[in-house]
Amino acid sequence: MGFTSRHFGGVKPSKALLFLPCLFTFFLVGSQGESTAMDNVATERLAEESHRQDSANLLIFIMLLTLTILTIWLFKHRRFRFLHETGLAMIYGLLVGVILRFGVHVPQNMSNVVLSCAVNASPATLLVNISGRYFEYTLKGEVSRGKGHQVQDDEMLRKVTFDPEVFFNILLPPIIFHAGYSLKRRHFFRNIGSILTYAFMGTVISCFVIGLTMYCFVSFMKVVGQLGGDFYFTDCLFFGAIVSATDPVTVLAIFNELKVDVDLYALLFGESVLNDAVAIVLSSSIVAYQPAGDNSHSFEAMAMLKSFGVFLGVFSGSFALGVATGVMTAFVTKFTKLRDFPLLETALFFLMSWSTFLLAEACGFTGVVAVLFCGITQAHYTYNNLSPESQDRTKQLFELLNFLAENFIFSYMGLTLFSFQSHVFNPLFIVGAFVAVFLGRAANIYPLSFLLNLGRKNKIGSNFQHVMMFAGLRGAMTFALSIRDTATYARQMMFSTTLLIVFFTVWICGGGTMPMLSFMSISVGVDSDQESSVTMVDGSQRRNTKRESAWPFRIWYNFDHNYLKPLLTHSGPPLTATLPACCGLLARCLTSPQAYENEGQLHDDDSDFILNDANVSSMYADVTVSTDASGSRTINRKRSSTGGTGGGPPDDGLDQELTLGEHELVIRGTRLVLPMDDPVEPPTTVTLPPPPSPPHSDPHRHRL
Amino acid sequence: MGFTSRHFGGVKPSKALLFLPCLFTFFLVGSQGESTAMDNVATERLAEESHRQDSANLLIFIMLLTLTILTIWLFKHRRFRFLHETGLAMIYGLLVGVILRFGVHVPQNMSNVVLSCAVNASPATLLVNISGRYFEYTLKGEVSRGKGHQVQDDEMLRKVTFDPEVFFNILLPPIIFHAGYSLKRRHFFRNIGSILTYAFMGTVISCFVIGLTMYCFVSFMKVVGQLGGDFYFTDCLFFGAIVSATDPVTVLAIFNELKVDVDLYALLFGESVLNDAVAIVLSSSIVAYQPAGDNSHSFEAMAMLKSFGVFLGVFSGSFALGVATGVMTAFVTKFTKLRDFPLLETALFFLMSWSTFLLAEACGFTGVVAVLFCGITQAHYTYNNLSPESQDRTKQLFELLNFLAENFIFSYMGLTLFSFQSHVFNPLFIVGAFVAVFLGRAANIYPLSFLLNLGRKNKIGSNFQHVMMFAGLRGAMTFALSIRDTATYARQMMFSTTLLIVFFTVWICGGGTMPMLSFMSISVGVDSDQESSVTMVDGSQRRNTKRESAWPFRIWYNFDHNYLKPLLTHSGPPLTATLPACCGLLARCLTSPQAYENEGQLHDDDSDFILNDANVSSMYADVTVSTDASGSRTINRKRSSTGGTGGGPPDDGLDQELTLGEHELVIRGTRLVLPMDDPVEPPTTVTLPPPPSPPHSDPHRHRL
Repeated sequence: MGFTSRHFGGVKPSKALLFLPCLFTFFLVGSQGESTAMDNVATERLAEESHRQDSANLLIFIMLLTLTILTIWLFKHRRFRFLHETGLAMIYGLLVGVILRFGVHVPQNMSNVVLSCAVNASPATLLVNISGRYFEYTLKGEVSRGKGHQVQDDEMLRKVTFDPEVFFNILLPPIIFHAGYSLKRRHFFRNIGSILTYAFMGTVISCFVIGLTMYCFVSFMKVVGQLGGDFYFTDCLFFGAIVSATDPVTVLAIFNELKVDVDLYALLFGESVLNDAVAIVLSSSIVAYQPAGDNSHSFEAMAMLKSFGVFLGVFSGSFALGVATGVMTAFVTKFTKLRDFPLLETALFFLMSWSTFLLAEACGFTGVVAVLFCGITQAHYTYNNLSPESQDRTKQLFELLNFLAENFIFSYMGLTLFSFQSHVFNPLFIVGAFVAVFLGRAANIYPLSFLLNLGRKNKIGSNFQHVMMFAGLRGAMTFALSIRDTATYARQMMFSTTLLIVFFTVWICGGGTMPMLSFMSISVGVDSDQESSVTMVDGSQRRNTKRESAWPFRIWYNFDHNYLKPLLTHSGPPLTATLPACCGLLARCLTSPQAYENEGQLHDDDSDFILNDANVSSMYADVTVSTDASGSRTINRKRSSTGGTGGGPPDDGLDQELTLGEHELVIRGTRLVLPMDDPVEPPTTVTLPPPPSPPHSDPHRHRL
Repeated sequence: MGFTSRHFGGVKPSKALLFLPCLFTFFLVGSQGESTAMDNVATERLAEESHRQDSANLLIFIMLLTLTILTIWLFKHRRFRFLHETGLAMIYGLLVGVILRFGVHVPQNMSNVVLSCAVNASPATLLVNISGRYFEYTLKGEVSRGKGHQVQDDEMLRKVTFDPEVFFNILLPPIIFHAGYSLKRRHFFRNIGSILTYAFMGTVISCFVIGLTMYCFVSFMKVVGQLGGDFYFTDCLFFGAIVSATDPVTVLAIFNELKVDVDLYALLFGESVLNDAVAIVLSSSIVAYQPAGDNSHSFEAMAMLKSFGVFLGVFSGSFALGVATGVMTAFVTKFTKLRDFPLLETALFFLMSWSTFLLAEACGFTGVVAVLFCGITQAHYTYNNLSPESQDRTKQLFELLNFLAENFIFSYMGLTLFSFQSHVFNPLFIVGAFVAVFLGRAANIYPLSFLLNLGRKNKIGSNFQHVMMFAGLRGAMTFALSIRDTATYARQMMFSTTLLIVFFTVWICGGGTMPMLSFMSISVGVDSDQESSVTMVDGSQRRNTKRESAWPFRIWYNFDHNYLKPLLTHSGPPLTATLPACCGLLARCLTSPQAYENEGQLHDDDSDFILNDANVSSMYADVTVSTDASGSRTINRKRSSTGGTGGGPPDDGLDQELTLGEHELVIRGTRLVLPMDDPVEPPTTVTLPPPPSPPHSDPHRHRL
């Protein structure tokens, strides 16, 4: 685990814990460092002590999370909505930070040794020859200049500081993967044009607006003499990039609970998921833009272009890698009968998704971005091939990981406000940052919405725009990006300011969502399923939706529906029907037997956006059938789930018979499609495709 | 992430990956270390390169696991039982180890620097002043003497070496927790006396027999001149302790599949779970026994006693801590309505279980042992309070973690045979070790079985004894204990020998289980549920079972049934009925409303071993009622599960009506207990306790 593990010679390290709201009180026996000849024993004891310390530190966070969970439950139980769990986690973190900072005093010790040596570079591994024995040391990083002697001053606070890379390598990936995996794809794809515009153009606009505003402020501060160190234009742009990543987790939780308009939800969610990816790549491109070697930090056209190239390369590389592993998993789950063993299937799914991250990092791409697109691909294709049990397992697993990681990050954020050692709070800079963030968000939302409304049939109303403006919270990604490098004065000031921006937006904007919604008179209690089933039945609305999508997307949908879905999943029309005749043999190999059976049932929740004008008429017939077929599917699922749960309730007896009757009707209605001619023998197609969208229940179930 | 991260100056680090059976081929662009003035950039690049390397290393293992999963599936699909998944994982690891060892040659580089300095001890943190800038280094450990110059010889192999503590802190806890959580408690408790005897006395006997045998061999080797270094008596004992931990994961998987006799299963499983705990504590006590400072390593009575004290202290401390957190979780889940939010509940359960480990480590106890008892407590109490969804979630989560961790350890084991740098294979020692392990196991099983059979009604047959002898595989725990410290010659020889013992037992003994079972003519295909329901109905057999348990266990069962279960869970008789009248108020506060409703239903799967002679008669009446009550419970559960799965299958209609009739009967049978007087209104007690045993389905369901 990547903790900063440090040792205290003769200090009882349990002091911090006594101040914790933890449930046990315990004492650790500190051992005086014996500087006798027993080096071996002393070294072992050092390592043991350091290990105990790590355990105790991690325990602090576990206790904090436990406490958060209990309080969240209390809030949910009492239907108290003004403070989200993440805001709560921050408050608890803050309290512990205050206690550690002001409540605990640790006497200094001299167990850290400063060596001077004549080496030119700093090697990754150091072998130190201490009185004839070799000890291996690894590089942790550079300590800020002039701080050499103050390093061990506040050991207690340094202890609870994680290696920032922990956030990037352990905590962010499950959060981002879950975002991709639980995407409501129907609404996402309906608004994909707008979402991409906000996420790409909007984030770039926001980044530059914030960067330029900050540059003005910083120049002014330099004139006034308020600036304590260097702050270049690239630093301003970097700041713009990191605070452009929105994370409306609080807002979306409330939206979900109140069933706010699905399009607004899709716009906000889609934007926030994708702009995380954009912000990561943007910020690393800006770092790459910094002219290496000389400190001129001036504007250079060539470097700018190179930076843009880096952006495109990293983004597309990560995208391709994520999609590739997703497709690979879909293939594996389609062509093996792994679904008979849900444990193996879940493990494979988990490992393949994780390997995306590692592969991208090993190739020099961005793992987090790759994981996002892997998640979307898994939800779109692989999810259809999984057994129902694995579908539940994977959903629940990533939901849990996401929950834990998110709350961990937010409580750590609270803690950091007091435990971080090199805060630089500059009032002018902070005011400037708040103004810049506001301007950047406004320059993102309003002009782009205006442009988008020119092309959209379903306009983005001004109340929607205000809510999107207001809902630009900053969260985990902004924090992780800003804590990644806090070596220079500029970066430290950025980090402190970012922390305040996160606190402000999560508490004030997050808490104000409810009043904001009612002030903007946005309809609440919209049932997304109902709304969508109307779309499905009503042909004119369908055509609207279809026309909304631009032609590149229509081509893509078509391709996806006719070739990719059948190739990668058990659903979709058989490839034998869609591929030209010359590929007959190949098509027959690649089409799973289920595809023929399900041919009439292809109507999953984004199929209605997949078709082009050519087959609108055939589509209509298809829908009529599919309503029945979905009925039969529901019944089939009931049958297959019986073994697990033990049948329906007794007073469902009558209802059961009704369903049975309907089932007969269904069989007759789809006789041409489903191979269920004999009504006595139960159909053998228990492996019919489950509802393909992870996060919400199948709308067809309600139409029964 | 605890890898040994090292950097190669100008080497393309992807070479290893090209030899992997991995699905992508990719190239990493190696960057020549620029030793110009741009230290900053160089350092950053170093860190980045090292991070890439780490990702690539971890990717090797992920790919190995993925491959293992696919092959396991193939084996299960083809019903090929001679090689278990763990054996398979080892083979794949072995192959990759061979490739890394002989297929890849990395040119040397000099990026490691040896410093000499005048410090006395080795500090945990080192600040190195390199041309005016301070770099922070942390201690990784001592490098074996005289190896200072050869350290970077085989970087490629060192890279894939994990910090051994990773096994103890990350991989073992979920395995051990899962063992505790999925314990078949009914059969476990029925044989608890025998299990404890084998686990405690057996392991200690085995440890000393192996230790003494090895001491004879080592003395002989010293005479012959085959010993290349020091090997003391305490080393022999330590070796005895680490190879005494059995891990019959292969055997039990086959037993489970074939439904071998449940008592044999319980004996083997219980022994192997508990003797892991005993072996850990025993080995650390032996290390503590080694007289500090002087290297006499002679036998001292006082040190021996001290060591025994350490054993008792650490074991009981870990036990108490594990049980305490389990009880705490039971309390929290009982007295909050957390069950309305399965995600929160699962997260809390996970965090509390993890905190057990950290707490124990922070207190200086053994986390793994604490986690085992925490798991047992959670399964016995907390599991009853969880919502059905959380029960599934927690089971599946720990099942997955267990699966991944186990296969990771076994594939790492295979890899280690070739990647570990300091193997010491001594043919004489290896032969001695195999003989000693055989003798140790025999001295554990046969004499103790003889003694136990004196007291047992249900004798342990000689064929059972032979199977137990044969099934003494060595696995994850033995490996983790032996890799923990490989600094000295003795420890290196132990590690290499242990590896061979693990390979041999997993492949030969594991693979030979099927022939062994048929050779010993042990009955196969015993349905544990059927067998137990017979026990329940047949009164005489019940009394046999009861008499089997010794009196301390009977007292404990009684206490557990009357006080602990009602206090910690929703099940059991109300405390108001069991506590003396003076505690009336307290009892009323602590009894959950469900307890009154369930009073007649208390018959969960170990209640029949809980009662003492005093209430045998009342017990009989209770059982008669409970058979009905369980029927009503099943119906209630059906009702509650309807919302989730959508009712029973259509052809269950008749069956449904039958059940309904039975339901009426049930209501009349338990009228005094269940508040379900109005048959029209559905009962409001949908929150009735689910079947309380995690691993197997409720036997009462089969009796409907």
